[in-house]
Amino acid sequence: MKKSVCLGVIVAMTIVVAGQRAAAQTVPASGGPVDPALIEDLVAASHILAQEGVLDAFGHVSVRHPNNPVRYLMSRSVAPALMTADDVIEYDLDSNPVSANGRASFLERFIHGEIYKVRPDVNAIVHSHSPTVIPFSVSQVPLQAMFTNAGFLVAGVPVFEIRKVAGMTNLLVSNKMIGKGLAETLGDKPVALMRGHGDVVVGASIPIVTYRAIYTEINARMQLQAIGIGGPITFLAKEEGEKIDAVNNDPKNPSGGIMRPWELWKKKVMEK
Amino acid sequence: MKKSVCLGVIVAMTIVVAGQRAAAQTVPASGGPVDPALIEDLVAASHILAQEGVLDAFGHVSVRHPNNPVRYLMSRSVAPALMTADDVIEYDLDSNPVSANGRASFLERFIHGEIYKVRPDVNAIVHSHSPTVIPFSVSQVPLQAMFTNAGFLVAGVPVFEIRKVAGMTNLLVSNKMIGKGLAETLGDKPVALMRGHGDVVVGASIPIVTYRAIYTEINARMQLQAIGIGGPITFLAKEEGEKIDAVNNDPKNPSGGIMRPWELWKKKVMEK
Amino acid sequence: MKKSVCLGVIVAMTIVVAGQRAAAQTVPASGGPVDPALIEDLVAASHILAQEGVLDAFGHVSVRHPNNPVRYLMSRSVAPALMTADDVIEYDLDSNPVSANGRASFLERFIHGEIYKVRPDVNAIVHSHSPTVIPFSVSQVPLQAMFTNAGFLVAGVPVFEIRKVAGMTNLLVSNKMIGKGLAETLGDKPVALMRGHGDVVVGASIPIVTYRAIYTEINARMQLQAIGIGGPITFLAKEEGEKIDAVNNDPKNPSGGIMRPWELWKKKVMEK
Amino acid sequence: MKKSVCLGVIVAMTIVVAGQRAAAQTVPASGGPVDPALIEDLVAASHILAQEGVLDAFGHVSVRHPNNPVRYLMSRSVAPALMTADDVIEYDLDSNPVSANGRASFLERFIHGEIYKVRPDVNAIVHSHSPTVIPFSVSQVPLQAMFTNAGFLVAGVPVFEIRKVAGMTNLLVSNKMIGKGLAETLGDKPVALMRGHGDVVVGASIPIVTYRAIYTEINARMQLQAIGIGGPITFLAKEEGEKIDAVNNDPKNPSGGIMRPWELWKKKVMEK
Repeated sequence: MKKSVCLGVIVAMTIVVAGQRAAAQTVPASGGPVDPALIEDLVAASHILAQEGVLDAFGHVSVRHPNNPVRYLMSRSVAPALMTADDVIEYDLDSNPVSANGRASFLERFIHGEIYKVRPDVNAIVHSHSPTVIPFSVSQVPLQAMFTNAGFLVAGVPVFEIRKVAGMTNLLVSNKMIGKGLAETLGDKPVALMRGHGDVVVGASIPIVTYRAIYTEINARMQLQAIGIGGPITFLAKEEGEKIDAVNNDPKNPSGGIMRPWELWKKKVMEK
Repeated sequence: MKKSVCLGVIVAMTIVVAGQRAAAQTVPASGGPVDPALIEDLVAASHILAQEGVLDAFGHVSVRHPNNPVRYLMSRSVAPALMTADDVIEYDLDSNPVSANGRASFLERFIHGEIYKVRPDVNAIVHSHSPTVIPFSVSQVPLQAMFTNAGFLVAGVPVFEIRKVAGMTNLLVSNKMIGKGLAETLGDKPVALMRGHGDVVVGASIPIVTYRAIYTEINARMQLQAIGIGGPITFLAKEEGEKIDAVNNDPKNPSGGIMRPWELWKKKVMEK
Repeated sequence: MKKSVCLGVIVAMTIVVAGQRAAAQTVPASGGPVDPALIEDLVAASHILAQEGVLDAFGHVSVRHPNNPVRYLMSRSVAPALMTADDVIEYDLDSNPVSANGRASFLERFIHGEIYKVRPDVNAIVHSHSPTVIPFSVSQVPLQAMFTNAGFLVAGVPVFEIRKVAGMTNLLVSNKMIGKGLAETLGDKPVALMRGHGDVVVGASIPIVTYRAIYTEINARMQLQAIGIGGPITFLAKEEGEKIDAVNNDPKNPSGGIMRPWELWKKKVMEK
Repeated sequence: MKKSVCLGVIVAMTIVVAGQRAAAQTVPASGGPVDPALIEDLVAASHILAQEGVLDAFGHVSVRHPNNPVRYLMSRSVAPALMTADDVIEYDLDSNPVSANGRASFLERFIHGEIYKVRPDVNAIVHSHSPTVIPFSVSQVPLQAMFTNAGFLVAGVPVFEIRKVAGMTNLLVSNKMIGKGLAETLGDKPVALMRGHGDVVVGASIPIVTYRAIYTEINARMQLQAIGIGGPITFLAKEEGEKIDAVNNDPKNPSGGIMRPWELWKKKVMEK
């Protein structure tokens, strides 16, 4: 039973080296083969987030290369619901493909590279058009932590206004400069909204970032409903949210925290 | 492998000519056979829009005849979810069937004919009872572009008030005069709401118009939610929306734009 | 191929007559066998309304006996989604079972009997806990016609307050007196809300009443959303709604009106 | 056909006694084997509540031991949708496992034990993150009975503020002290909300508590909608709700009350 996969990368590089010697020199070196279980999780996360309505035909999930912190792995440009292990491309942190092997990259991959550069604690990133989060991105009302499952939101949820870094654009994070601006807005937080566009969610692992992306959407729905009920809302206190987040990410009690929903979600998409 | 289908039209005309010589003279000539892939897309669009909740048992999608700009193709009167390739009828721009072959036409086909007459840029049209769009059609609050995927809405979304052209009616666009009024309200825009009834969405191709119809509905949901959150809403600027629309319809980058969701949606309805 | 079914009624009566001669004399006579297609439609309507979220595990659909206007047919007490042809019981207009054959009747069958008594134009009735209709039943804001498909609502939608006829109750229409009060509130309208309980919808046929029950729910959702958008709402004018209703129930154009959704809905539940 | 199951408990105790004599002395005695139909209902309730959107990957259902009122049965720590009969663990009322047999217990099992201690009328408990209930838990607006199916809510719906008993926590009911505080807030009511967390619902049987948990969620949706409509809301009167609750739980008319939806829901999850 093989323990790692090479992402079609080595093969691709060989072809490139043989055919275009000069160009090949600028292709970044691969971080090396990766445990197929990690790729399986990357694919599962894409399918889960599509299934749960966080990702539409757009958006993407990435994971930092486990053996080389200046590389990350992400799907080629394809609807997340349709992604397979064969779609994975490796990138350097400037978001150059180590080898696209002729496959189209997501225009907005710079979201991922620029955040990995400045957030060593982050190993996985989701960018989505999370439908109930977007209304908060164009509003003056901050998204705030409503309940236990969204405890991570007590860190605060900044909103990225692309006009401040790039003026009037197509709103896409289509280069390093805009990606850097987004990473600065995110700061040390787990989630940043992108005005009129969606959000970016980060975490220490694929299960954590999947959990956070889903509960950011659910929290937005609940906050919208609480506003509809009227009157003051008792949000989670900072201390409460931090204590919850510690439980959810407690490696000594994986079944009590975020691994429980992860396993349920993964089972559901694997059975489809 | 055959490259075109004749829509049952030629056969029908023969029958008509043989049996009713006088009547046959008023049947418009067919634009000729059509690539079956286009018919497949027309059927797929009907199924997709039903699947995504934009079309109920009513509503319809049409496409301009690719070889004759004064003809268009549309389903016979049947629920869009049940439409098959055999249901396609060809019409002239006065919405006379080239050959209905005994099949009932949609009462509201004049929506399509009258818009094709005055919008040479339009090759596909959707009329729907899009559920979250209708509340905006009876309100004074204009539908506005909330986010990237609905960038096309920055052109503005007029509302057609049928009372202005036809007084108290059953609200159906059941003749050319009302269809012409709707086309005038639409002007050069991609979407017009129809008060107390639904909307009409136009575009250069079936995938584009399907994309626009779905994201008009999603934008309406998001705008409703943003109003619920309260306070001012930062809508897309005109320049932002126009730049997004250019990316979405960039023929050089089909996988980055509207073809990505189209392929996902089509795959889902084909598998059912 | 048999043309009619006898609803298990004849068999049941025989047993009763043999075993309990005195009691048998009070069992009303049957209206006679019924076309199985009508029973199929009654079952289909139950399944459709459950599928579309109008009926939960409660609620019921009835049809007037086609050969005897003082009899009606309705399911025994079972969740509508589980109903089969074998569950049909015949009742007289006082809602006595012609033969329950040991099967439990719905407590609220008096809704049906009392309305059939005073509405000769009505051949089918739905009672439901239609979820978005109930909030209007406990509000001062009248449900009003928002769009074409709900044109029938221009007749006005009265609200039945059971306290006025029976004081503090369990809110169930559990006898003829309360049923009569509900029928009076309904008057000549197609729909009446029942405060804190649900609604009753009537029509000339099973397809019509099914259509009306579904679009009453959808209209409630749209009106709630339009209120959320804010500002004045342009409801359908009375004349508009009446003209739409005429089209929808035009026997000369069945595929343009309510038969189109009926066939779609029926096909969906038959395939399950 | 066997009439009872021993929950893996006897086997587990043997192992414990053999291997760890001292520790074994503190393991509470089992209440004995249980009718497998009860375990089937416990599993069904978990699946039903997941299916109906009341339980996410968290939350749990318990049942009091039918032969020993100071024992209760609950799933090991696993997502409710995935629970099987093999996952059942027996607990004493201090929420010590009679035998976990190496399986992880829910951190919040103290909710159950502490309520069973003080509520002899209660034989089944649900703790959930019921999504539309949570916004009411962080609001000043009390959840109130909107309609017949939620008649049990006329008893009043208190909100448990964990800060009052335990200060700044992770909001989990992770010990007996907090569980006791929650039980005190619940008092003699069927439902208590837990601020920023979820709710707890109690009843005399698994079908009743399942019914109540589902209709608490539906009632919350309806109340939110009625607030959105605007103006005063006519809630159920106390007398009305009490009379409805009596019908729903009438053992002489099981098919008219909560057993009808229970059987529908159970059939749906059994068929999956």
